[in-house]
This record gives sequence, C-alpha cells and structure tokens, in this order.
Amino acid sequence: MVVRAAVAGASGYAGGELLRLLLGHAGVEVGTLTGHSSAGRRLGELQPQLAPLADRVLAETTAGALAGHDVVFLALPHGQSAAVAEQLGPDVLVIDLGADFRLADPADWERFYGSPHAGTWPYGLPELPGARAALEGVKRIAVPGCYPTAVSLALFPAYDAGITEPEAVIVAASGTSGAGKAPKAHLLGSEVMGSMTPYGVGGGHRHTPEMIQNLSAAAGERVSVSFTPTLAPMPRGILATCSAKARAGVTAEAVRAVYEKAYADEPYLRLLPEGQWPATGAVTGSNAVQVQVALDAETGRVIVISAIDNLTKGTAGGAVQSMNIALGLDETTGLSTIGVAP
Amino acid sequence: MVVRAAVAGASGYAGGELLRLLLGHAGVEVGTLTGHSSAGRRLGELQPQLAPLADRVLAETTAGALAGHDVVFLALPHGQSAAVAEQLGPDVLVIDLGADFRLADPADWERFYGSPHAGTWPYGLPELPGARAALEGVKRIAVPGCYPTAVSLALFPAYDAGITEPEAVIVAASGTSGAGKAPKAHLLGSEVMGSMTPYGVGGGHRHTPEMIQNLSAAAGERVSVSFTPTLAPMPRGILATCSAKARAGVTAEAVRAVYEKAYADEPYLRLLPEGQWPATGAVTGSNAVQVQVALDAETGRVIVISAIDNLTKGTAGGAVQSMNIALGLDETTGLSTIGVAP
Amino acid sequence: MVVRAAVAGASGYAGGELLRLLLGHAGVEVGTLTGHSSAGRRLGELQPQLAPLADRVLAETTAGALAGHDVVFLALPHGQSAAVAEQLGPDVLVIDLGADFRLADPADWERFYGSPHAGTWPYGLPELPGARAALEGVKRIAVPGCYPTAVSLALFPAYDAGITEPEAVIVAASGTSGAGKAPKAHLLGSEVMGSMTPYGVGGGHRHTPEMIQNLSAAAGERVSVSFTPTLAPMPRGILATCSAKARAGVTAEAVRAVYEKAYADEPYLRLLPEGQWPATGAVTGSNAVQVQVALDAETGRVIVISAIDNLTKGTAGGAVQSMNIALGLDETTGLSTIGVAP
Amino acid sequence: MVVRAAVAGASGYAGGELLRLLLGHAGVEVGTLTGHSSAGRRLGELQPQLAPLADRVLAETTAGALAGHDVVFLALPHGQSAAVAEQLGPDVLVIDLGADFRLADPADWERFYGSPHAGTWPYGLPELPGARAALEGVKRIAVPGCYPTAVSLALFPAYDAGITEPEAVIVAASGTSGAGKAPKAHLLGSEVMGSMTPYGVGGGHRHTPEMIQNLSAAAGERVSVSFTPTLAPMPRGILATCSAKARAGVTAEAVRAVYEKAYADEPYLRLLPEGQWPATGAVTGSNAVQVQVALDAETGRVIVISAIDNLTKGTAGGAVQSMNIALGLDETTGLSTIGVAP
Repeated sequence: MVVRAAVAGASGYAGGELLRLLLGHAGVEVGTLTGHSSAGRRLGELQPQLAPLADRVLAETTAGALAGHDVVFLALPHGQSAAVAEQLGPDVLVIDLGADFRLADPADWERFYGSPHAGTWPYGLPELPGARAALEGVKRIAVPGCYPTAVSLALFPAYDAGITEPEAVIVAASGTSGAGKAPKAHLLGSEVMGSMTPYGVGGGHRHTPEMIQNLSAAAGERVSVSFTPTLAPMPRGILATCSAKARAGVTAEAVRAVYEKAYADEPYLRLLPEGQWPATGAVTGSNAVQVQVALDAETGRVIVISAIDNLTKGTAGGAVQSMNIALGLDETTGLSTIGVAP
Repeated sequence: MVVRAAVAGASGYAGGELLRLLLGHAGVEVGTLTGHSSAGRRLGELQPQLAPLADRVLAETTAGALAGHDVVFLALPHGQSAAVAEQLGPDVLVIDLGADFRLADPADWERFYGSPHAGTWPYGLPELPGARAALEGVKRIAVPGCYPTAVSLALFPAYDAGITEPEAVIVAASGTSGAGKAPKAHLLGSEVMGSMTPYGVGGGHRHTPEMIQNLSAAAGERVSVSFTPTLAPMPRGILATCSAKARAGVTAEAVRAVYEKAYADEPYLRLLPEGQWPATGAVTGSNAVQVQVALDAETGRVIVISAIDNLTKGTAGGAVQSMNIALGLDETTGLSTIGVAP
Repeated sequence: MVVRAAVAGASGYAGGELLRLLLGHAGVEVGTLTGHSSAGRRLGELQPQLAPLADRVLAETTAGALAGHDVVFLALPHGQSAAVAEQLGPDVLVIDLGADFRLADPADWERFYGSPHAGTWPYGLPELPGARAALEGVKRIAVPGCYPTAVSLALFPAYDAGITEPEAVIVAASGTSGAGKAPKAHLLGSEVMGSMTPYGVGGGHRHTPEMIQNLSAAAGERVSVSFTPTLAPMPRGILATCSAKARAGVTAEAVRAVYEKAYADEPYLRLLPEGQWPATGAVTGSNAVQVQVALDAETGRVIVISAIDNLTKGTAGGAVQSMNIALGLDETTGLSTIGVAP
Repeated sequence: MVVRAAVAGASGYAGGELLRLLLGHAGVEVGTLTGHSSAGRRLGELQPQLAPLADRVLAETTAGALAGHDVVFLALPHGQSAAVAEQLGPDVLVIDLGADFRLADPADWERFYGSPHAGTWPYGLPELPGARAALEGVKRIAVPGCYPTAVSLALFPAYDAGITEPEAVIVAASGTSGAGKAPKAHLLGSEVMGSMTPYGVGGGHRHTPEMIQNLSAAAGERVSVSFTPTLAPMPRGILATCSAKARAGVTAEAVRAVYEKAYADEPYLRLLPEGQWPATGAVTGSNAVQVQVALDAETGRVIVISAIDNLTKGTAGGAVQSMNIALGLDETTGLSTIGVAP
C-alpha cells in the first residue's frame, strides 16, 4: 500500500525537510505541493536540494488543492490549520507541523498566542509515556515544537521516575532554520555567523507551556520550566541543556539506570556511553536523539543534555514517525538514525 | 544477492561517509572495519553519526582482517594501497579511495608524489566518455580525487564537443573535510571559520595531473590546467569555477546544447535551468552534481561552474557508484540525488 | 584640527564600519547620522557594536540634516548621491561609498546600471599609479567597489610593468556583508552557512567595468576581465584569485620583483613572504591587503591572490584613507594594518 | 612614560590577542616575544594578522629572555608560571593569563588541577566589589578565566545586592578559540562548524571553583554553581546564561535597578536597554560586556545573560585593563568598547 501525501507549505524549511523524508519513504507517494507567496513557482527554485521534484509547480494552499490525498501535512503559519483541516474531512490523516493543536489548555494558548484556541489533537511525540498507543489509527496529529521535542525527550524519564524536583532550568541553542525562511535582518548570514544571542528570555517563548504540559504529565504534578533559547551560528540542530535538583538519595547510578530503562526499546532515543556527549552535528538529517546524563554531586542537580536535528526529529521526522504509527506502518520507515557528518 | 564489504580506514572522513552510504545500500552488508591509530576503539567514539555501527570495534588494517569480503574499500594514506590489494587476491573487488592508482603516466605520479608509481586501475568516474563500460566487471577501481571529479564533470562536455580552447583556468573552493581528520593547526575551527585562503597555488596541487589526464582524453589533445584550490569555511562541498576560451563561432546556445546532450542520460549530472546557479549546500550528502554554464560575450570565455559534495560524489559516493557498475547492480543503488539543506 | 563628519546611511554595513573607524580617528568628530527606513531609531538597536554612539538617533537623509559638516560620507543606494552632493555645495568634502561616480565612461554606467550617468569623481584608490596625488585637496571622492579594490590592487603592478597579457581571469569569494543588510531569503544564515554559490557570472557583475577601467589604465591598453564572484559562508572578507598569461620571457623572479617594487612604499599593501598565502581572516577589521604571487611554469600564467576585508579596505577604510589624503592628514590616521584574528 | 612589555607564549590565541591590544596601547612598547615549540619562527607565520610584528622572531621562553622589561605577560600552559615569575624578581609587573594563581583555596586548586598550589595573586577583575583598589600598584596579577569573567560580571550585582538565592545555574557557549591553538581532532573546523556540544558537564570544568570564589565573595555566603560549558561554531565569544531564584519580594524593577547601579560607573559593563539582548558578535574584538536581565514571574528566577569576547575582555583585554590599573595609567587605555561587526 502506498499512501498519497500532500504538503501545504512546501517552500519553507519544514516543508522541504518533510519532502526530503517522504521521497525516501517506501510507503508514500508525494502528491500536491502548495504554497502561498510561492504558488506558481517551480520547487527547484525554492528547494534546490530536492532534485526529483525540481519541476513540480506549487499550487495555492486551498482545501481543493489538498483534497484527494490520504495524508495532508500542514506546514502553515500559526492560526491557519484549523480551517484547512475542517474542509479536508474526518477521514483524511491531517498532520499539523504548526502549533495550533499542541496545547491542551486553552488558557495557555491564549496567553502565548493571543488568539482563540483551535483545539487539541493527539500529540505526536510517541516516546512520551502512553503517547505511542494514543496515536494508532488517529486522523489528526499535532507535531510537537522543536524545543519541546528536545527538552521533553531529555527530561521525561527523570520526571516519570520521580527522581527530580519539579523545577527545571533549560538553556537551549538552536540552529537558524528553526527561525524559518522568511527574510529578517537579524537572521542574515552576516548577523548570525560568529555570534550567539538569546531571545524570548524570561518565560516568554511560546514553546514553554508545551514543555510544562509534557513534563507535568510525566511527573504527575506541575513542573515549572525556566527556558532560555539561544540562536547559534549553524543551520540545523538543537542542543538542550536541562537540569533539575535530584530528589534526596538519588545516585548517579540511579539516574543512569532510569534513562537506560526509559530508552531501552526506543528506536531513536540513545543514551550515549559514559564519557561521550551529544553533538548536534552527529544527528544532522537524522531522526536520532543523543542524550547524556550527569549528577553534579556539589549542586545536587541532575543534568540531561540532548541533541536533535530541529528539522528532522524536531519537525518533519517527528511528523513522519507519527504518521507511520497512525497508519499502522513500521514506525521507522523512512527515518534514519544516521547523521550526515561532518 | 548481498555483498559483504570491508572498509580499511573507517575512522576518517572518507571512511565515515562510505559507511553512511553503505548502511543505506540494499545490496551491501558492512563487514570488517579497520584503522591504524584508531584500531581497538569503538566506532561510536570516532563516527558518532553512525548509530547502527556504534559498537563495532576497529581492527588493525591488515590483509588478514580484510580477507573474506566481496568488496574491500581502501581509504588509506597514499602509498599503502598496493601492498594490501596484492594480498587480497584478484577475485576481490578492491576500490581505492586514495590516489595511488589514478594516474596513467608514471612520470606524473613521480613528479607530484615523489615515490614510485604503483600502477593504474580502471578509473571510477563513470560519466566520462567510455568510462562506464570500462568499469563493468572489473576487480580494481581507482576512485577519482574530489577536485578532479568536480572539474572533469564540469568541463568534459566542452572538450569532448570541441567548443573550447585547450587552456583551462580553474579556481575551486573546498570545504575543510577535504583536508582530512588529522589534526593540524591551520585546520582548526578557529582558523577556518571566517576565513578563506588558497593553497597549492601555481600548479603544485596533486590533483592537477589528474584533471589534465581526464580533460585531455575528452579533448583528444593536451589540455593545460591552471588550478587554484581554496579552503572555505564550511565542512563539505566543492564549488569549481572553470573557464576556457570558446572556439570561434561558438554561441551561448551551442554551449548549452552541448551540456544538455552530454548530461541527458546521466543520473547525477544536472544542468540547472537558466538563471539558477549551483550551490554546494544543495548537494550536501547527495551524489548529485549541479552545473551551470555561461558564455561571456566580452571575453569569449565559456564558464562552467559545478557544485558537489566532496565526500559524497567527490569520494565515497563515487566509490559506491563505481562499485555498483562493477558488480552489475543498478548504478544508483544507495545513492541519492537529494541534498540535506539548509 | 578636528573635522566634523556626517554619515548618510548609518544603519547599513558600510555605515557601521565607517563609524567604527571614525570613532578611532583622532582627527574626526562624528556628527549627524542619517537613515531612511531607520530614521528615528537609536543607533544602539541598529549597530549594537558601536557602544559610544548607542544613544544617537538617526535623522532622515536630507541635505539639511547633512549640512554644517566638513565631510559627508554617503552610503546610499545607487542613484541617490548626486542630488544630495549637489545640495551640500562645493566646499564640503563629499565621499560617496556607492557606485554613482566611479566609472569614467557613461556608456559603461548605462550598460551596467540602466540609468543616466551622474558623473565621475576622483577615484579613491590611492595605491593606483598617480591616484594618490590626484586625491590631494579634492572635495569629491568616489570610493571604489570592494571587488575592484581587491582585484585592482592585486593586478595593477603586473599590468603597470607590462609582464602580463591583457586578458585577466578572476574568481573572487566574498563574505556576505558585501551583499548588504537588506533582508533577502538567499542571504539568510540558514542559506549561506555551509554553502558556496556564484552569482553575476559571465560578465554581468557591475564591478566588472570598474576593474577593466583600472587595469586598462595601468596597462596602457584595454584589458579584458572575466570575473566570477562567489558568496562564501563568512561575514567579511574577499579572496580574489587573479591570473593572466605572462608575457614571453617573464620569470618567477621578475614577477616577484615587480610586486616588491610596486608595494615597497605602500602602507597597506603587503607582498607576503614566499610560501605564505593570503587569508581573509588575517585582515578582518584592518585596512591591510595581503598579496602573494606565483608563476605557473606549466601554463605560463601569473597568479596573484589578494585578501582584503571588504568592509574596511574594500569600503569604509578606503573611504577614510582617501579622506585623509584629501584633507592633508597623515594617510594612515585611524587605519590599522592589524587584523582581529582568529 | 612608555613601559616595555614582554609576552611569553606569543604564538597562541591569548598571546596574539594581547599583542593586538598592546600594539594599539599608547603607553606600551612591545619587547621580547617568546614561545616554546615556536621558538625561532617569525611571528608573521604564526600570527599573520599582526603585520607590524611580522618580522619578529620568537625566543625560547626563559627568564633570561624575559628579563629587562617593565611588564611580563605569561600566556603559558598551567603550572609553568611560578618558576618564571620567581626568576623575574619582585619589581617586574608579572601578569599571568593562566590559571595558576587565580584560586585562593589550595584545596580547590588541587582538586581541579591535580598538582600543588602555586599561590594566589591579586585577581584581575576590577569590576568586582573592592577589586579595583586592590590592583593599584601591585606587581603580580592573576587574570581571570574567560568563563568566570562572563559569569562573575553577570551575577555579582545580584549576589552583592542579596536579591538571589545562593544556587546559580549557568550554561555558557564559547567560541573555539577558548580551547586554544594546539591541534586536536575535535576542534577541527570540520567538526565544529554546524555543531554544538557540551563538555566538562556535571561540575568538572576547572573554571567552576573560580566562579564560586567570586560569587561567594559578592554574596557573603557560599554560592553553589551548576556550570555547563558548550562549544559553539564560532571563533570568539562567550554567551553566558545565568540564573538563580529571586529572593522573596524581589521585583523586575528591583533587579534592573540593582544592575543599573552596579554598572553605572563601569567603563566596560553595559546593561542593555530593555528589549535588547546581548550578542557575542557585537563585542568581537572589544573589551565590552553586554548584559541583560529578566525576572521570570512564573519560575521566580532572575536570569542574567552576558556576552563577552573570550579573548579580549575574557583574557587579553582583562589583562591590559588590570595592567593599566596596576601601573596607574588610565584604566581604559588601549581598550575599546567598539566591536568589529558583522
């Protein structure tokens, strides 16, 4: 069986990565591609790396153009997915790479996005406790944000096992593709090369409530998250440095054992051997998550560091992984654990 | 049929890229991996991007360790391949990623490498006139150098069609992985980021005679090559800017027609649409070659620019492509035209 | 004596670099700063590296705002300088960092810029034969383009000495700041990091006629220039690889002697010792030009490679150097030969 | 008065930056330069950016070579400074850029460096409470580490004012020059470009006790520091993200007021206007420290982010600043607040 998949928003970074993965997916045929300002243009101009699709022309993003597919991926600006999804009907698998349906609490949505909440869809992070089963057979999937993917996968084992206090401090560095392809002066190569800078400091980043939601669910209590994102001079990758106080009596061996157990059967989560640290360069283009843990004896903090490719596991790879589960395919179809390095 | 392949020199950049490709090749099983200073170490430490092989331990590079495979790839320092190949016997397909067997003229070898010539093996650049057929069924393959790959594929159509004078001027920029993984001060990140610098200027680069050999064969006369390589602040990629005087009466349309014809049936050579220029970032991790041509009316020069990934099409991808032909497999098995971008 | 200088176009890269240099110039007081879309904003937001001027607010670019200064630097889009200069009157030293007044031949201007020619001002490249004297006391200066600076300084000695044929082939790599600060998708960090790409290939780059003008003047005959610019993944720097056939009988020693003589008394031109090659990283933030020469015995080509900082010697430093001469100051005031490296 | 200064360890990154600054310092004449493996080589080969010193030849690092100077800077591997300093005598101002004399507690030294403690010298971070006066007239100065500079300047106002709890969590990103110029495989350009990776996680980094020492002194109680350094793909710069719980009742306005007051008279510490965040690119080559603060209302954490140039304020600039104080010169001589950007 080959499913036919459309991609709305094919000109952006998320759309491009999705198409790269779908072209290598044995069970998917790439159908209609759409854009907005890029409608009418050849994909070869917009995504020159996708040689097999170079002569495809983008249609305008409308429900009509997206109709007639088994799967529709939405890589649209926030706030536009609900209307499109509604018109596609309940039998089409709609996978939203945007934020619209990630949050369970409408108050969180309204506070961080300033608009009415569109709803909540099954959450496409299969590695979270109970999440994989909840994705089987569904027709709507909200793909997690890139930072919440890196952070939630780093910290859920600690919170699920109850070895850390419910106050997490997270500093993450992201490659520039996470900021999208719309041209802005502060994202110019001249500005970002040779420089690091934070943004959304002090609790203001929109991915914060999503992290709290995931970690609180794992902990069974409200977890607070101090999250500082920084922009790093590289195109791809997120390195998340996460820490929380260890609960009394937790040893370094216990921390390691918790992660070994939590990741044991996961195809993409890898606790590195002791002494080896995650590097974003090692997961470029792959769906793999590299993780390492430490217990700082002086401060009593458990430190967990994860590295992902923000566009692959953090966006398009996560979307394909969840699609595979929803469709009953092998979860790993089309998704590699092998990075392109150096 | 699955062939069993060994890789000698698995710890370097060429070896790592080769393993990345072989892991995705349906017809190959990865056998023994060897190294020299890295013998005894886990591959996971040396090539952290190759998750499926993380627990493999490198053997010392000896003919004994490499015996018992259908294919042996040699990614060794210059001068070491001949002895290993001899011990492997004539029935094993030996593919040398080093320079030892690329040059036909012993005098060229001795002049540029300062040691006795080891011999000449079938040359693994299938796109050159007559080269594909000459690779079928062979048991020894010399993989071209990265710069000669980029330059020969850019210029052979012009010389084969006789539209350019036999004096080529070439300036190429290479990513740092082309200089290998042995630590040297001038290759430190601190040195290369934010800087471009030439090397091997004035005819001294060892890849020069290989370019002359290829282009002269295409031209049917001796072609001279002024070649200046430069080191660019990026891990991968070669951008080769090549030019030569057009012969009298050659038009821009004629130049384009020559390239359209020469590349028409080639799976990896792509003449871009007019107005679009090659970018190394668009071919990262792929075996594709992006090419564009122009005729400068004022100077009468044909300008041909090519972009490749130096580690893929320029080294390991070229090796796999030639292996496929030698073994009678589909030439494109395990080799993508899709880049990882941005 | 301290002159008072205004900068029109203070928000861009050229304006920012100019202000950096003027702040370190003992004979200059920074006066009015203007912008267009940035008028009314604090300089601290736009040029966060210029701490001493952080609280300055940009005025709208008008002749009124620029009046009352001894020197006015214009870093404006092409076509806007003439009108401003006219209103400033003949006694103000007006230094145009744009292209409007660089070309002597109106036909060249019209062909490459598609608009009427505004005129020709004294050309601010003091190292060219006769140029220094021609700048003394002038009230109008056209600052050279960045590529013409790198290329003309590399090749004028060879043409002045008559050791090369009048057909030059040039391939240059530029940092991204050369493309300016206006946000465009192809200049995003995500696009440029890890990638090299050419542009303006085949004679179309607007800096070509300026190079021809300079080299022809040095040669005393028409020099043709095949020029290919490429965009490199670094914020600053130009590495220009220039070559031309040596005239009969020219030896490597003769080439070197020509350059030693031509550069002997120049404060910013440096022929590197044999065996050392120019690196853009070594001239970052400095007004220095690193040059090395070679004679390729096989091809008979003289190869000259230069490295500059495109924003310093290639733009703002060249402007200050010419200002110094015009005002009768020490030519090197405020201009360093020391780069910021690594 | 011009003092004569020698630099031991002139071939490394700290030594190169120091010489860059000393060349621009009106009160210093550059005397003897020494090295170890680089002894006998021209500085032009080793530090091609330092054109005025290109023909200087490095002497072997001995007390004899360093004798006869007013000031001697030591940029030597750990453990070598004490012997040299002793031979130089008590009247020479000896400024150690290494770690040997930074720590007050011998137990800290032995635990982190594994060798006997050499002693404690006046600490060259003038902005710390009481530190400036303690540097006047001294003959020995221990220059702080780069990370402790960024972190201590970020957090001392909060601890001095008593607005934060004594448990700090710090994640810092450093450019690669912080790791030095000795060639190591993991510092190759190929490895670092496009990748971020942590190191020294869990309390093991040698700069940790130095931070604790500084912050505890400011707080008047023992401050614990959870410090995670990461290696970023840029040559220079440190971005330090520091946080600690606010004490009860502390408001955002109070935090800001504390920093405004603490930095009010400091020439190099700059609290950015609200809404603007530090960027390492804005301080490249300068002695400036950009700082911004926030109070996360949800988590109750004070977040302080600082950006420095690790080689300037973090090493060589800090050394010159302290030298100026010790010698009774204007503290800002030779030290700019202006960065080279982009």
